[in-house]
Amino acid sequence: MEFEARKAIVILNKDDAAELDVKPLDRVELVLGKRRDTAIVNIAEKLIREGEIGLYESVVHALKAKAGSKVRISRALHPASIAFIRKKLDGRMLSKNEIETIIKDVVHDRLSDIEISAFLTALHERGMVMDETASLSRSMADNGKKMGWKKVIFDKHSIGGVPGDKTSILLVPTIAAAGFTIPKTSSRAITSPAGTADRFECIAPVDLSWGEIKKVVKKTKGCLVWGGSVDLAPADDIFIKVEYPLSIDPMLLPSVMSKKVAMGAKHLVIDIPTGRGTKIKSISDANDLARQFIDLGARLGVNVRCLSTFGEQPLGHAIGPALEAGEALHAALTGKGPPDYVEKVVALASTLMSMGGMKNAEAKARHIITSGKAGRKLKQIIAAQGGDPDIKSTEIEVGTERCKVTSNFSGRVWWISNKALVHIAKSAGAPRDKGAGIFLHKKIGDRVRKGSTLFEIFAEKPYKMKAALKAAQGHEIMGIGSHYNMVLKRIPEEEHEKTFILER
Amino acid sequence: MEFEARKAIVILNKDDAAELDVKPLDRVELVLGKRRDTAIVNIAEKLIREGEIGLYESVVHALKAKAGSKVRISRALHPASIAFIRKKLDGRMLSKNEIETIIKDVVHDRLSDIEISAFLTALHERGMVMDETASLSRSMADNGKKMGWKKVIFDKHSIGGVPGDKTSILLVPTIAAAGFTIPKTSSRAITSPAGTADRFECIAPVDLSWGEIKKVVKKTKGCLVWGGSVDLAPADDIFIKVEYPLSIDPMLLPSVMSKKVAMGAKHLVIDIPTGRGTKIKSISDANDLARQFIDLGARLGVNVRCLSTFGEQPLGHAIGPALEAGEALHAALTGKGPPDYVEKVVALASTLMSMGGMKNAEAKARHIITSGKAGRKLKQIIAAQGGDPDIKSTEIEVGTERCKVTSNFSGRVWWISNKALVHIAKSAGAPRDKGAGIFLHKKIGDRVRKGSTLFEIFAEKPYKMKAALKAAQGHEIMGIGSHYNMVLKRIPEEEHEKTFILER
Repeated sequence: MEFEARKAIVILNKDDAAELDVKPLDRVELVLGKRRDTAIVNIAEKLIREGEIGLYESVVHALKAKAGSKVRISRALHPASIAFIRKKLDGRMLSKNEIETIIKDVVHDRLSDIEISAFLTALHERGMVMDETASLSRSMADNGKKMGWKKVIFDKHSIGGVPGDKTSILLVPTIAAAGFTIPKTSSRAITSPAGTADRFECIAPVDLSWGEIKKVVKKTKGCLVWGGSVDLAPADDIFIKVEYPLSIDPMLLPSVMSKKVAMGAKHLVIDIPTGRGTKIKSISDANDLARQFIDLGARLGVNVRCLSTFGEQPLGHAIGPALEAGEALHAALTGKGPPDYVEKVVALASTLMSMGGMKNAEAKARHIITSGKAGRKLKQIIAAQGGDPDIKSTEIEVGTERCKVTSNFSGRVWWISNKALVHIAKSAGAPRDKGAGIFLHKKIGDRVRKGSTLFEIFAEKPYKMKAALKAAQGHEIMGIGSHYNMVLKRIPEEEHEKTFILER
Repeated sequence: MEFEARKAIVILNKDDAAELDVKPLDRVELVLGKRRDTAIVNIAEKLIREGEIGLYESVVHALKAKAGSKVRISRALHPASIAFIRKKLDGRMLSKNEIETIIKDVVHDRLSDIEISAFLTALHERGMVMDETASLSRSMADNGKKMGWKKVIFDKHSIGGVPGDKTSILLVPTIAAAGFTIPKTSSRAITSPAGTADRFECIAPVDLSWGEIKKVVKKTKGCLVWGGSVDLAPADDIFIKVEYPLSIDPMLLPSVMSKKVAMGAKHLVIDIPTGRGTKIKSISDANDLARQFIDLGARLGVNVRCLSTFGEQPLGHAIGPALEAGEALHAALTGKGPPDYVEKVVALASTLMSMGGMKNAEAKARHIITSGKAGRKLKQIIAAQGGDPDIKSTEIEVGTERCKVTSNFSGRVWWISNKALVHIAKSAGAPRDKGAGIFLHKKIGDRVRKGSTLFEIFAEKPYKMKAALKAAQGHEIMGIGSHYNMVLKRIPEEEHEKTFILER
């Protein structure tokens, strides 16, 4: 059975299951020669005949079974972690050992999706005390690959939620140029139009082996690679798959910190984009989250500082892998970029640099960027990762399907909807189509005339451009007006004709 | 794809999924000619090639697809019920319409196991107010078959947990003989050694169609059939499959009442076995549960009364489908049975009879049983259901593998472990092997001599008898002593040699 192959699942015929007194999601022990495995039971009436058993790939491997092999099966106990999940369901605290048992079973695919879903839901409902969060972070890090370094490791993480957030591409060379070691692993987009791995892939290869990463970092002090290929805290990836359809994220802290611990980070700056249209709505919420990260970091031996940053509009102008790669590369090579982008990089980079003991870090970070030192360092990193160091921002191909959206009104841009822009960019094909996305011509505070271009949509395929334009019709994207519109929402809403780009 | 065939699932190739921007558990809309269906996405890398799609049976049926059919697919929204599950996760109350939406999606297999698991976990964690419980019960009843009757319907339900609880087999003919209509549907065992459907199947067929049930009840005023064949409140069966591995039961009230509403019950007596070794540990807990059933019944138009009954040992002597069928049949035909069994039936039956307006119900119920009227009614029911009305209790075959367990001590039986007996009976093969089980020779309060037979184990297969004896070694089954042992548990436990049948 190739499908869902990682789980230790076997399929029994209905009558054999009754004979063994096992029900779906019970466990059986399997013996073939000297090999043993425990598997989750599924039951079929027709697919598997009496006396036959269907094995998923992981069981086939564990038993070295072949078609026709005779396997002895017997009823087995449920794994202990189910009792511990049940304990959390009852609102009780889990011990270090209980958490370790659960994580081991998760990583070895010994728990069904139903059980993992119940665990995550229970964590969402009951929360965790800091002892549990720390145990979970450490278990998740321990049950996966761990990186060893000779240097002190610096790292940066963003809570995310801001489209166009290409911070790492300029921050990593800035920190490396300042003499600190920053082996940055990034994710691909899950729900956004681009993750840093998607962006940087337009400039250089990001799918590096652990050995290659070591070489790049040894040579340049930095890297910008995809974290997925190095198997850090694999439990997290399993949890994310279950959390995604439920839109819950009870693992926010352990998810971030387990990867950082596995990476060996000593100094970590966390960017908490804050405000309307981001995950964290207020500075007070950002403060609470930051305190938790700092406390957790202290328990795990990671020095953490957090910045709450303005997140109510996209960072810079470009949204989508290739457009963002171009904007970031241009900023690094010329030492000039959109002011919000450069200011954010300076703030985060100088925080890390002062954590490393550097004085006047802000001025130095700014100088590294404006003097072109960051750009030269980025070229080294590009070359070390196997890319062309002489790549120019204009050489990064963007979609040839283009469409400008203009304003029907004159006035000022009062607000921009991150959510609407994300939806449009994704409809245009991002992140799958690297050249798809949006280039914003106007941002908050900018003056607009009737007919001015507000933004331009890029796509690689005509039918996706069509989908993007349709998405643009369905959203209120920007608020433009000659005066503040003080009403945010009327409840209940009055019936009114929907006007494109006018009201929130 | 035959496996897990009921769910509307499709399997996409990884690249096609990326092109559509869908992730596992996202939804896609499928169009084939004029037919449409929405399905849950699973993703495979090898099993399904690019441009191909794997359809589970329900999707095949909905689209009338054949191998090679061309299906148009597009990203679809998540069903609204996911937002409502999320709402419950956040601790908010669900409206009638929201609950109805969830139940419809559950019944039509439009929700993944992960989503159903999250819903049940959220209910377990957050609980429900009575309005929600009532809406849920009604939705579960409405989304399934509903029985219509010309007569006022009487019904009985047990919360369960007591081994050997063969109450219904004597209660149904008693009520029917008293002139009331009681079309009793029962379940098969889930975790116990026998359900009433398993028991009565040793006496007469229980797998009747809806039309057959109508005929039996018209003729005899009663029946004892398996509920699984008439599809009452099918959402409940789906929930039970997910609850089982988690050992949670947030649906206790709606699960019971939805089936009763679908069955058209007007007067319902609920047996709440209470005490050590049952689900409900104290009379105060039983009282709370009873109040909830009565309140819920009032909202649903069902007149409910509850009895908290002594549940700290098996009912009667027999445990296991055939043994219990024999004991129940013998009691009905002779008008004499184990006193605890007869007293319980009299109490429950007379409660129902007085709900039906009968005076002196207890004396009348007792008379119906002792006079043999209940026995004659049971023979009518057996015949009407297609069984042999002249069947004798000794003709019900029990296992030929037999083993007596004797006492090493003299004294009185102070306690009996329901859990241990259930485990032994199941190890012996019950309920799958109908002749397997236990016959208890001694019950609480009985005097025992060294060498007296405490109980006898029955099995159909030698290897299952072996398993049962092994199970008997591993448990403390009965407490026998010349004096009360006042210590229930020492914490922490002292190391001691395990003595068979001595201490709790």
